Amino acid sequence: MKSVVVIGGGPAGYPAALKAASLGAKVTLIEKDKLGGVCLNCGCIPSKSFLDGAHRFQTAFSAAALCTTDGLQHAQALFNTRDFSQLKTRQRAATQKLAQGISFLLKKAQVTVMNATACFIDEHTLSVSTAEGEKTISFDGAIIATGSTAFYPAPLDTLRGQIYDNSNFFTMENLPKSMAVIGGGVIGCEMADFLQAFGVEVHLIELQPRLLPQEDENISRVLTQQFTKRGIHLHMGTSVTGAVKTQDGIELTLSDGEKLQVPHVLAAIGRTVDTSELHLERIGVEAARKGVQVNPQTLQLKPHIYAAGDVTGLLQLAHAATRQGEVAASNLCGVPAVYHNERVPRAIYTTPEIASIGLSRTQAQTQGIEIKAHKSFFLANGRAVAQTQTDGYVEWLSDAKTGQLIGACSVGTNATELIHIAAVALEAGLTVAQLREVIFAHPTFAETWGDALK
Amino acid sequence: MKSVVVIGGGPAGYPAALKAASLGAKVTLIEKDKLGGVCLNCGCIPSKSFLDGAHRFQTAFSAAALCTTDGLQHAQALFNTRDFSQLKTRQRAATQKLAQGISFLLKKAQVTVMNATACFIDEHTLSVSTAEGEKTISFDGAIIATGSTAFYPAPLDTLRGQIYDNSNFFTMENLPKSMAVIGGGVIGCEMADFLQAFGVEVHLIELQPRLLPQEDENISRVLTQQFTKRGIHLHMGTSVTGAVKTQDGIELTLSDGEKLQVPHVLAAIGRTVDTSELHLERIGVEAARKGVQVNPQTLQLKPHIYAAGDVTGLLQLAHAATRQGEVAASNLCGVPAVYHNERVPRAIYTTPEIASIGLSRTQAQTQGIEIKAHKSFFLANGRAVAQTQTDGYVEWLSDAKTGQLIGACSVGTNATELIHIAAVALEAGLTVAQLREVIFAHPTFAETWGDALK
Repeated sequence: MKSVVVIGGGPAGYPAALKAASLGAKVTLIEKDKLGGVCLNCGCIPSKSFLDGAHRFQTAFSAAALCTTDGLQHAQALFNTRDFSQLKTRQRAATQKLAQGISFLLKKAQVTVMNATACFIDEHTLSVSTAEGEKTISFDGAIIATGSTAFYPAPLDTLRGQIYDNSNFFTMENLPKSMAVIGGGVIGCEMADFLQAFGVEVHLIELQPRLLPQEDENISRVLTQQFTKRGIHLHMGTSVTGAVKTQDGIELTLSDGEKLQVPHVLAAIGRTVDTSELHLERIGVEAARKGVQVNPQTLQLKPHIYAAGDVTGLLQLAHAATRQGEVAASNLCGVPAVYHNERVPRAIYTTPEIASIGLSRTQAQTQGIEIKAHKSFFLANGRAVAQTQTDGYVEWLSDAKTGQLIGACSVGTNATELIHIAAVALEAGLTVAQLREVIFAHPTFAETWGDALK
Repeated sequence: MKSVVVIGGGPAGYPAALKAASLGAKVTLIEKDKLGGVCLNCGCIPSKSFLDGAHRFQTAFSAAALCTTDGLQHAQALFNTRDFSQLKTRQRAATQKLAQGISFLLKKAQVTVMNATACFIDEHTLSVSTAEGEKTISFDGAIIATGSTAFYPAPLDTLRGQIYDNSNFFTMENLPKSMAVIGGGVIGCEMADFLQAFGVEVHLIELQPRLLPQEDENISRVLTQQFTKRGIHLHMGTSVTGAVKTQDGIELTLSDGEKLQVPHVLAAIGRTVDTSELHLERIGVEAARKGVQVNPQTLQLKPHIYAAGDVTGLLQLAHAATRQGEVAASNLCGVPAVYHNERVPRAIYTTPEIASIGLSRTQAQTQGIEIKAHKSFFLANGRAVAQTQTDGYVEWLSDAKTGQLIGACSVGTNATELIHIAAVALEAGLTVAQLREVIFAHPTFAETWGDALK
């Protein structure tokens, strides 16, 4: 593969460009906005920076429990001086530092980066529009990695630009006193967590009867308990039937008849794929809101055209996008590689954290696998008890016949980090008996992953 | 094996008792003090509870960076109300809860627990001394798990009882304004970290030229930087040549001639094995300060007598003791099992955390293995940058010829937890190429473990 164009410089596109360059291709990366995409600029990284900042105040409150009775008032005084602009400054510095890292890697790999929009003219030519004007680029191979944008269903679509989504949430001027978060999926739960922890009254509205409807029911239960304890107003099994701009903010009408008057609204209903400006019809590829139809193992669209990341609709996670980008570039450059969608860990950065990998109970049952569940609670974990952080549990699923580990999930401290114990075990194809041989350090939260199999 | 006695109810003894009971033996567990041993009562658990408590104030200070300029004074006010008695109360509650867990498990397994001291009469009889008097117990098999105690070399031995060691540190009445910690190993570093974080001026004295002399030099360097930044006075390559009780505390004379006047001293020089009260000579076993000589794979001392935990001198870590106890009980009860000393992770709970597993560079070189090192720094990690926690790194060692992973170490956030990624990989015998296939969630500290291999 001599010349490769990659359209989109997010978590799928820039690793694809690096991989193609490492395999000898002459690579052009086209990004219309900022390198790093949604993940770095208005997604994973800003949200984790905000969440960590807000959670530091929760820790400060917990320190007050180790003080004389005056402690609480000082923790409250500290919290009262919290400054949203400082939080934003810290986040911007982090994003900038990581963006510089990406630029550095691309430059080192001699990837040509263009700040431009692109559309296909035919199967070997792109039209590219930069600030200096238009030009055409011919290519031997292409990777489409244009990502996704926030989805606005009716009746919210009429308020686009007047309410927040991830694209403008992290740059808002001031935090309102209260906010409605529409959508109880990953983004909605994380942002509700942040907002509450930073002192905003939160209404969280979810159409399904429970938070995180795609995760195990027990996980939803633990998170629901925590959110309720923290005073987040949960409107489950509820949809928004009306939304109008008022003088003071937004008035939402909910499906249960309630009228909710809030200064601001965050839409976190899901993501949508918009490839209209690419003119995919010119290369014979069908566009769809759920993503373009690639081969889910090879990421191939046409013999010399691949797609990676959210635009494929496979799994809208940054690290899935990165692996897809690398696999696509590898295949495009003649080095066969396979993407395994089922080996992607899922991480949710609420307090408590939530993570899962591999098959869920439901998926295993659908596939006709007889499962055995192995569960252990942090209530019995030495470090959790010593640090008074005993919420949550770990659960492994194994194939009851072979003992092979097929999935895992956890809710609790460090869950998003410790899920990688399961990631390595699943990749290695370990059985329950083999994992029992692992010696876990005492006292660690990680021990619970071992205890569950005892 | 019909009847088994286990002498010692710490992290080696109680799991040994549970394992033997699960294999059908009638088990008596003899503990002279408290179930859970040093680990639960005056070791791992209390130290982690103290460290976590003190670190919460560090987090509170870091929250002040996200506040208006008044924040720092409120964080300081919060810190000024810290209450050592609250910290102790929380720790005692944790220890009590975990002790109840052990009692419950032993009861459920129908293990007879005796609060008593024991000594051998012959190879099948013990003399046991309880509050009610003396009696003899005959046994078919025995497991010695009597642990270790703090080591007091000259000239400190003359001050035994007048200075602190781990056995009385956690119950001290009040924290002094300053303290000398003698010993820069794991316990010394952890307690110096706690004391400084809780507002005590600390002098840390270590005979070797660097902190944690048993760990990789780079690890020592990072910790030394952090401790120095925090104002801990490091006296490296220094020994204590004189120690006398004075009116105000203790006066230490150091090998460089300096006289150090401190209110209190913590001795953390190492551990010693004292088996004198067991009368091992009656069963033909030689006692030694470094531990009794077991077979390091089977833990066997005599055909029907085993030892486990610190008393073996193999590796003085609670989780090593637990695995040894289980392996000893299993072998004693006729189910062959092997203990692998090289698969024990090592965890140090300072800030930043430190962990390692498998072979170090030096060990690999001694064994003539040509190594390849794979390192990645948290400075390039998304979550670390987003959360401004960029100190430290991860390093894997692989066999340069086969690519097999043979060891790993890390210093940084969550290192004690994330070392288990390496524990699973080493147990599974993975190569660098195999581990590269693992997909790590973004953004996580765990990603650095993957990035290091790229």
